[in-house]
Amino acid sequence: MAPKKPTRSTKSWQGRLTADTDAATAQFVASIDVDHVLFRYDIAGSIAHAQMLSEGKIITKDEFRAIRDGLVSIEADIAAGKLAMPVELEDIHMVIESALVERIGEAGKKLHTGRSRNDQVALDLRLYVRDAIDDLIAGVEGLQRAFVDLAGREGRIVMPAYTHLQRAQPILAGHAMLAYVEMLGRDGERLSDCRRRVDVNPLGSGAVAGTSLPLDRARTTELLGFAAMSRNSIDATSDRDFLCEFCFCCAMLAGHLSRWAEDWILQATSEFGFLALSDAYCTSSSMMPQKKNPDTLELVRGKAAAAMAQLVGMMTLVKGLPLAYNRDLQDDKRFVFAAETAMRQSLAVARGIVQTAHLRAERIAAGLDAGYLDATALAEYLVNRGVAFREAHHVVGRLVTQAEQRGQTLAQLPPEVLREACGAIGPDVADYLGAANVVRHYRPAGAGGAGQLAEQIAFWRERLGT
Amino acid sequence: MAPKKPTRSTKSWQGRLTADTDAATAQFVASIDVDHVLFRYDIAGSIAHAQMLSEGKIITKDEFRAIRDGLVSIEADIAAGKLAMPVELEDIHMVIESALVERIGEAGKKLHTGRSRNDQVALDLRLYVRDAIDDLIAGVEGLQRAFVDLAGREGRIVMPAYTHLQRAQPILAGHAMLAYVEMLGRDGERLSDCRRRVDVNPLGSGAVAGTSLPLDRARTTELLGFAAMSRNSIDATSDRDFLCEFCFCCAMLAGHLSRWAEDWILQATSEFGFLALSDAYCTSSSMMPQKKNPDTLELVRGKAAAAMAQLVGMMTLVKGLPLAYNRDLQDDKRFVFAAETAMRQSLAVARGIVQTAHLRAERIAAGLDAGYLDATALAEYLVNRGVAFREAHHVVGRLVTQAEQRGQTLAQLPPEVLREACGAIGPDVADYLGAANVVRHYRPAGAGGAGQLAEQIAFWRERLGT
Amino acid sequence: MAPKKPTRSTKSWQGRLTADTDAATAQFVASIDVDHVLFRYDIAGSIAHAQMLSEGKIITKDEFRAIRDGLVSIEADIAAGKLAMPVELEDIHMVIESALVERIGEAGKKLHTGRSRNDQVALDLRLYVRDAIDDLIAGVEGLQRAFVDLAGREGRIVMPAYTHLQRAQPILAGHAMLAYVEMLGRDGERLSDCRRRVDVNPLGSGAVAGTSLPLDRARTTELLGFAAMSRNSIDATSDRDFLCEFCFCCAMLAGHLSRWAEDWILQATSEFGFLALSDAYCTSSSMMPQKKNPDTLELVRGKAAAAMAQLVGMMTLVKGLPLAYNRDLQDDKRFVFAAETAMRQSLAVARGIVQTAHLRAERIAAGLDAGYLDATALAEYLVNRGVAFREAHHVVGRLVTQAEQRGQTLAQLPPEVLREACGAIGPDVADYLGAANVVRHYRPAGAGGAGQLAEQIAFWRERLGT
Amino acid sequence: MAPKKPTRSTKSWQGRLTADTDAATAQFVASIDVDHVLFRYDIAGSIAHAQMLSEGKIITKDEFRAIRDGLVSIEADIAAGKLAMPVELEDIHMVIESALVERIGEAGKKLHTGRSRNDQVALDLRLYVRDAIDDLIAGVEGLQRAFVDLAGREGRIVMPAYTHLQRAQPILAGHAMLAYVEMLGRDGERLSDCRRRVDVNPLGSGAVAGTSLPLDRARTTELLGFAAMSRNSIDATSDRDFLCEFCFCCAMLAGHLSRWAEDWILQATSEFGFLALSDAYCTSSSMMPQKKNPDTLELVRGKAAAAMAQLVGMMTLVKGLPLAYNRDLQDDKRFVFAAETAMRQSLAVARGIVQTAHLRAERIAAGLDAGYLDATALAEYLVNRGVAFREAHHVVGRLVTQAEQRGQTLAQLPPEVLREACGAIGPDVADYLGAANVVRHYRPAGAGGAGQLAEQIAFWRERLGT
Repeated sequence: MAPKKPTRSTKSWQGRLTADTDAATAQFVASIDVDHVLFRYDIAGSIAHAQMLSEGKIITKDEFRAIRDGLVSIEADIAAGKLAMPVELEDIHMVIESALVERIGEAGKKLHTGRSRNDQVALDLRLYVRDAIDDLIAGVEGLQRAFVDLAGREGRIVMPAYTHLQRAQPILAGHAMLAYVEMLGRDGERLSDCRRRVDVNPLGSGAVAGTSLPLDRARTTELLGFAAMSRNSIDATSDRDFLCEFCFCCAMLAGHLSRWAEDWILQATSEFGFLALSDAYCTSSSMMPQKKNPDTLELVRGKAAAAMAQLVGMMTLVKGLPLAYNRDLQDDKRFVFAAETAMRQSLAVARGIVQTAHLRAERIAAGLDAGYLDATALAEYLVNRGVAFREAHHVVGRLVTQAEQRGQTLAQLPPEVLREACGAIGPDVADYLGAANVVRHYRPAGAGGAGQLAEQIAFWRERLGT
Repeated sequence: MAPKKPTRSTKSWQGRLTADTDAATAQFVASIDVDHVLFRYDIAGSIAHAQMLSEGKIITKDEFRAIRDGLVSIEADIAAGKLAMPVELEDIHMVIESALVERIGEAGKKLHTGRSRNDQVALDLRLYVRDAIDDLIAGVEGLQRAFVDLAGREGRIVMPAYTHLQRAQPILAGHAMLAYVEMLGRDGERLSDCRRRVDVNPLGSGAVAGTSLPLDRARTTELLGFAAMSRNSIDATSDRDFLCEFCFCCAMLAGHLSRWAEDWILQATSEFGFLALSDAYCTSSSMMPQKKNPDTLELVRGKAAAAMAQLVGMMTLVKGLPLAYNRDLQDDKRFVFAAETAMRQSLAVARGIVQTAHLRAERIAAGLDAGYLDATALAEYLVNRGVAFREAHHVVGRLVTQAEQRGQTLAQLPPEVLREACGAIGPDVADYLGAANVVRHYRPAGAGGAGQLAEQIAFWRERLGT
Repeated sequence: MAPKKPTRSTKSWQGRLTADTDAATAQFVASIDVDHVLFRYDIAGSIAHAQMLSEGKIITKDEFRAIRDGLVSIEADIAAGKLAMPVELEDIHMVIESALVERIGEAGKKLHTGRSRNDQVALDLRLYVRDAIDDLIAGVEGLQRAFVDLAGREGRIVMPAYTHLQRAQPILAGHAMLAYVEMLGRDGERLSDCRRRVDVNPLGSGAVAGTSLPLDRARTTELLGFAAMSRNSIDATSDRDFLCEFCFCCAMLAGHLSRWAEDWILQATSEFGFLALSDAYCTSSSMMPQKKNPDTLELVRGKAAAAMAQLVGMMTLVKGLPLAYNRDLQDDKRFVFAAETAMRQSLAVARGIVQTAHLRAERIAAGLDAGYLDATALAEYLVNRGVAFREAHHVVGRLVTQAEQRGQTLAQLPPEVLREACGAIGPDVADYLGAANVVRHYRPAGAGGAGQLAEQIAFWRERLGT
Repeated sequence: MAPKKPTRSTKSWQGRLTADTDAATAQFVASIDVDHVLFRYDIAGSIAHAQMLSEGKIITKDEFRAIRDGLVSIEADIAAGKLAMPVELEDIHMVIESALVERIGEAGKKLHTGRSRNDQVALDLRLYVRDAIDDLIAGVEGLQRAFVDLAGREGRIVMPAYTHLQRAQPILAGHAMLAYVEMLGRDGERLSDCRRRVDVNPLGSGAVAGTSLPLDRARTTELLGFAAMSRNSIDATSDRDFLCEFCFCCAMLAGHLSRWAEDWILQATSEFGFLALSDAYCTSSSMMPQKKNPDTLELVRGKAAAAMAQLVGMMTLVKGLPLAYNRDLQDDKRFVFAAETAMRQSLAVARGIVQTAHLRAERIAAGLDAGYLDATALAEYLVNRGVAFREAHHVVGRLVTQAEQRGQTLAQLPPEVLREACGAIGPDVADYLGAANVVRHYRPAGAGGAGQLAEQIAFWRERLGT
C-alpha cells in the first residue's frame, strides 16, 4: 500500500494537497465506472448553469457559447464512446470539465463558477431519477395493459381463488389478473408522488451554504424544467431522501412482481397445471432433457431481493450522517442504478410473459369440483333463509365433513342429508351450488363475478387509455 | 410436543376440525397479545357493518341495536381493562365477537354475516394506521415548530457549516436548524401521500372473492369516513402495501432524526462545545461521577435501527407471497405497532430536547477563525474581479497553505502576500474576509445568510401556523 | 413536553445533574419493560463480582454474605412477580441494586465497586445468549430428530424431486426430509461457533478503561464458567458482535424453516396432495366452512421476516457508532429477545408438525408418471452405451417431445420409436425407465436412492444420539 | 416485447423448446456479465470432473487429455481477454463448454456427463469463496498489523476515552487502536468458521438427485482439495448458506471498519484535532479551496451500507424458496462479488490510512485537563479508604460540580474543599489525580494502562507473526 504511482493530476483541488493519492486509493475513490451514465444530465445542467451565468453577466455571452458548444461536442463523443475517462479524474463531472477546458481553454475554467460538485451531483441525480421514474411508470402501465388485455381475452374462465394456498372460493380468472393491476396502480401512484419530491432544483446551493455570487436560481429552475427550487442549501446538498424513496418504490414494485411470479410459477407446475407459458420465456436444463422451466418468472421473483438490497443499502448509507455532504454518499448511485435497471428489465420481461401466456381452461375446469369452493355460498344461502351466520357456518362445516367422507361434492349430497343438516335447505339450493353458480351470485362491488369484472376492466381501460 | 391440554374452544371454525390444537401451538398461533390495541377500530368497523346490514334488511333494526349496544359496552370494558382475553380466542376479533354472543345471544351470531376476518383485519389496520398517520404528522409539525422557534431565538449566531465534518463555509445557525425542518417537511408530505392509499375501505371483500349477500359497500365507506372503497376483493384482503409504506415513512423520519441526533451529539461534545442540552434530557454514569451524557439523543439516533428493522421485516413478510391472504401476514402488526411507537416517542422527546437547548455563542465565536471558512468567499471575490473560477480556486488554495504555515487567518495575511498571490486582490478584500463578512454577502435564495433565514422562518411560520 | 412531574430519584448519578428528567422522557429512556428478563443473569453476575471483591479484600466476607443473601431473596421475589419495577429506576440493574440497598443497607452500596453498567450489561447479555444458544441447539436437534424419524417411517416412498418447481428426477421421500436435516445441522454448527465468541467474560472492564481497583478477572471468569476473558476494556464494553452473530444465526435458521414451510404448504395443497397435516396444526376460516389451512406452517414461514428484521435492526444499530459504549445500544435487547423467542417457538411448533404429519402415498404414486422423471436416467443409459452426453441429452429431449404429443410416458413409447431416436437403445431400457427403476440405479454418495438414504439416516441417528 | 431477434442457439437444451427466446429476455436471463469472473474455478472443476470420469472409465484417457488441454487453452484465452462471451450462451459454464466443443469436437460433448449446471455452479461458487475468504483473512491481518504497529509507535500517548462521545476516562492511545484489532480478530475467526462450511464438495450431486453413473465423488473431493463432500444432493445443489454467511462476515467486517472510520473522521476534525491523516488519503473540494477532507475514511464508512445491502439481498433471495434449485439463485453472485470487492478494497485502503497516520500529541495533551477524566479514579481512591462506592460516587459528583463552578480541575481544587467533601481525602490524593496518574494506576487485565498495552501488543505480535 506504499504510494507507488503518483498520479499527477488535473484535479480541481490540486493546489491544496501536497502528497499524491496512490493508485489503489485512486481506484477506490473514483466513481467514474458508475457515474458515467449521468453524462447527459451533467451536461444539460452545466449548459443551463452557464446560460444563467451569462444572462447574469457573470460570464460573457461568448464564453457561454463556447461552453455550450464544447459541452455539446463532448456529449456526442461520450455517446459515441470516444471520450477517455481516466480514473484519476474521479467522476463524470471532472471528466467533462477537464475535456471542456482542453477544448475551449480559459472559458472552460469559468463553468464551475458559483457551483460545487455537491450541488452539481444533486442536480444530476434529480434529473436522472426524474427520467427513470417516467420510464418506470410507462413500464408499469405497459404491464397493466397486458394484464387487462389478458383479463379481457381469457378472464371469464371460472377458477378457484386461494387463501393460505388452499382452495377458497370460485372466481373469474380475470379477477386475479386485475388484482395485480391494482398493485401496479399503487406502484405508479407512489412513483408519481416520489416524482414531486424529485422535481426540485438544488443548483445554486454551492458546497453547503450557497455563494456570494448573484446566481439566478429561478432561471436555472425554469431552464431545466423543474417544478420548484430548494429552500435550504444545507439540505439541498445532502438530501438523498428522493433516492431512498425511489428505491422504496422499486422495492414495492419488485415485491408485487415477486407475488405475481410466485403465483404463476405455482400455476405453471404440472400439479396445478392452470397456465401455459410461452417457450420464449422458459428454458430447459443442462442435465434433464425433459425440463421446461419458468426461469424468467423465477428471475423476476428474485429481483425482489435485489430491490430490497438497494433500498436497505441506500437507507443505511444515510443513517446517522451528520450535516451536510459526506463522501459516503458517493455510493448512492450504485444502489439507485441497480434498482432502476432491475425494475426496467423486470417490467419488460413481465409484459412479454403476460402477453404470451394462456390459461389451460380444461385443466382448470377438470379440478373445479375439488375443495368445496361453494361452501361459503351455501352458508350464505342459509343466512338468506334466516339462519344466523355463525350457525350456518357450523352447519356447512359439518356437511363438508360428511361430503368428504362420502367422496362427494356438496351438490352431490342427497337432499335428505342436506335437509337433515338444516331444515332451511330447500330444493332451490341446487341453483347455488357448484363454482359457476357461486360466481353468478356475487353481489358487492369488487367481488369475483362477471359484472364486477366487466366494470373493473372498463375502469382500467379508461384509466390506461386502451 | 404431544398434544397435552386440549383447549375446547369457541373458535369460529370448531365445526370443521376434529383434533384440537395443543397449548403451545395455541400460543404461537394467537395474536391477541399484540392486536388487542385494535379494539376500538374493530368495534367501530363492526358497528358500521351491522348498521349497513340492518339498513339492507340482512339483519333487523333490533338486532343492530343489540349488536351496537353490546359492542359499546364491550369497548368500555376493554378500555377499563375488564375483559378477559384468553389466548384460545386467538385474536381481538374473536375476543369481541365471543363476548358479544355471550352478552346479547343470537343476534351476536349475525354480526359476522358477509364478512371474513380477512377483510375485517384489513379494515381495522387501515383505521388504525389512518389515525397513527395523523398523530405522527402532528408530532412532526410539533418538532418543526420547535426548530423554527429555536432558529428565531438563537438562529442569528454565526457558526461553521461542515462538509465531510470539516469546516466548510460560515452560516447563520438557524440555517442548519431549518435544514431539519425541510427534512421533516418531506416526512410530513410522505405520510400524507401514504394516507391517501390507507384511506380506502376494504370491508365487503369477504375472505377473498366477496359474497353473495347484498352488502352496500358505499354505505360502510361513508359511515367509516373513507375517501374511497377498494375495487378488487383479492387485492383488498391481501394488500399490505399501506403498511410497508407506513413503515417506510417511519424509517425515513427515523433516519432524519438520526442525522439530527448525530449532529447534536457532536455539537454537545466538549471538543465542539456548541450546544448546551438541558439536564432533563441527559443522564450520567453509574461509575463515572463527572459524566453528563446526551442519552436521549443517542436513543433517538438508535431508533433509526428499529425503524429500519420494521421496514425490512414488513417488506420481507410480503415478498413472494402468493395470492391472497396468507397467515404469514399476522405478523404485520408487530412491525407496524413497533414503528409507530418508536416514532411517536422519538418525536415527543426530540421536541423537548429542542425546546430546552441553547447554543453556546461564546464557544462558537471563539473558534470561528479556525478552518478558513472565508476561503470560498475569497475565490468568489476574485471571480468578481475577472479571474476564472478554477484559477481563483488555485490562488486561494495556495494562500491557505501560506496562512497555515504562518499560523494566520486569511484576514491576517499581509496585503503584499495577498497581492503577490493575485494582482486582483485589492484593499477592499477586508470587507469580504472573516466569517461574519462572508455570511453578509450570501446572495442566492436558500443560502446561509440573514435575508434567506428571515425568508425561510417566515415561510415555515406561515405553513405551520405559528 | 415542559417538565411536569419531577421524579425525585435514587438514580446512581443523582449527585450530578440538577434538573430532573420529565416523565415522558423517563419512559423513553427506561428499558426495564424489556430487560427485566435478564434478572437471573444480572444477579448471578453480581454474586460472582461480590465474591471476587471479598476474596480480594475489597469488601468484607460479611458484606459479601449480606449481598449474596440479599440478591438471592430478590431473585426469588422477582421470579414470584413480587418486586416492583418502577420506570424511574430505568433498568433491571438499578432495580436490583436499589432493592438490595433497601434490604441490606450500606453493604449494598459496595456492590457496584469497580463495575459500571457498561461491563455489567455486557456480562448479562453474554450469560443470557449463552443459555439461549444452548436452548436453540436443543430445539434444532429436536427438529432434526423428528425429520430423521419421519424419514425412517415414511421415507422410502418414491416421489418427484423438483427444480424450478417443475418435476425433475425421482427420489425417495426421505431424501428431501434429510435435506432439511442438513440445513439444520449447519444452523447448529453456526450457533456453536457463535457460542465460542459469546463465552468471554467482559466483567472488570468498567465503563470503558478499566479501574484502579485490584479486580481479579480470572476469578469471575472461573466463577461464571466462562471459557475466556476479554482482552481490551474498550472493546469489551462496546462489542455487540455476538448479538449480531446470534441474530444472524436465528435469521439463517428462520430462512431454512421458511423454505421447509413453503415446501410443505405446497405439498399440502389439494393440487399437490402429497402431505396430510395433523388438524392440531391447522385452523379453519371464519367465513369459509370448508377450509383447513396450514396456518402454523405459514406462521413459521413468516418468522423469516421477523428474524431478518431483528438482524437488520441489530446491525444497523452498531453501524458507524464511535467508540465506546453509546446509549443507542440499549435497544440491542429488543432485537435479540425477539429473535430468540421467534426461533424457540418456531422450532417447537415445527417439531410438532413433523411428528404428526403423514405422506399420502397413494396420491404421490398416482401422479408419478407425470413429468418424465426418467428422462435424465434415459440419457445416462445412452451414455453407458457410448453416446456423448450432449448428444444423449438431445436425443432424449426429442423423445420427450414425441411422448408428449402421443400422451405417453417414455416407458410407453413403442420400441421402434425409441430405436429410431437412437440405435443404442436396446430392450433392456425397460429396466431403467419409470421412477422406481430410476431411484434403484442412483450411484454416487448423497444421491436420492435407498442405499444413500439408509447411510444418511444412520449417520444422523448416530450424530443425534437417537 | 414481441419476439424480434430470434437467437438460434447452441444452448444445452435446444432440443426441447420450440420457440426461441427473444433478445431482451436473453439479456435478462444471462449472467455472463457477472459470472465470467468464475472462469478459473469453472475450468479447475471441469478438469477434476473429467479426470475422475476417465479414471472411472466413463470417458477415455485420451478424451480426458483433450478436454484438459482444451480447457487450459481456453483459460489462457479468457485471461488474455481473447474469448468472446456472447450473451446467448447465458453463462460462463456454457461459454466454456461451447468453446471446448468447438476446439476439441466430440470429446467436449462428454464433459458434462453426470453433471448439471446445478452442481457445477455450486462447485464454482465454493471454490471462489474459499479463495475470497483466504484473501480477506490476509487483508484483515494486514490491517491488524498496521494497527499494532501504530500502537507500538505512538500508542503511549495519554488521551481521553469516550463513552456517549463524552470524555470518560484517560487511556493510552494504543488501547483504542487495539480495540479495533480485537474486532478484526473476530472477523478473521468468523471468516475461518465460514470457510469450514464452504470447504465441502457438491460435485456429483447432479441436478438435484444425483445420477445413475458411477461417479467417484471422493476423488473429485481430493483433486479439488476439499475437506469434505456433501451428504445430500438436494441440499448440495440448493444450499446457499455459505454465501449468506460470507456476506454476513463481510457486513460485520464493514461494520467494524465503519466504527473505526467514524472515530477517525471525528478525531481528524479541527475540533478534536487528535489525528493527522496523510494527504494521500484525503481530497479537497471543487469549490472550497481550503478543504482537506478524509474522503477515504468516509468511503470506508459508507461501505457498511453496501455490505449490509448485499447481506440483505442474499438472505432475501433464499427466503421461502422451495426445494431445490430455483433460478432466483442466479442473482447470488451479484451480492457475493459486490461484498467481496467492497471489503477487499476497503481493507487495502484502510491499511494505507493507518500506516500513514499520526497522532497530534500536543493537541491531545493540551486538552487533557478538560472533562474530569480523573473523577472515577478519585471515587476509587475513596473506596480504597473505606467509603462505599455509591457514596464515593456522590461525593465526587458534587466535587465535579464545585470544580466546574470554579473553573478548575479536580487537582486544582484547594485541599480544604476536598477534605470538606469527604474526610477520607488525604494529601496523597495528588498522586491519583490528572490523566497521567490515572492511567498509571489501572489494575485489571484488559484495562487502559501501560502494562496492559504492552501485554496486548505482545499478544497480537505473536498471533500475527510480526
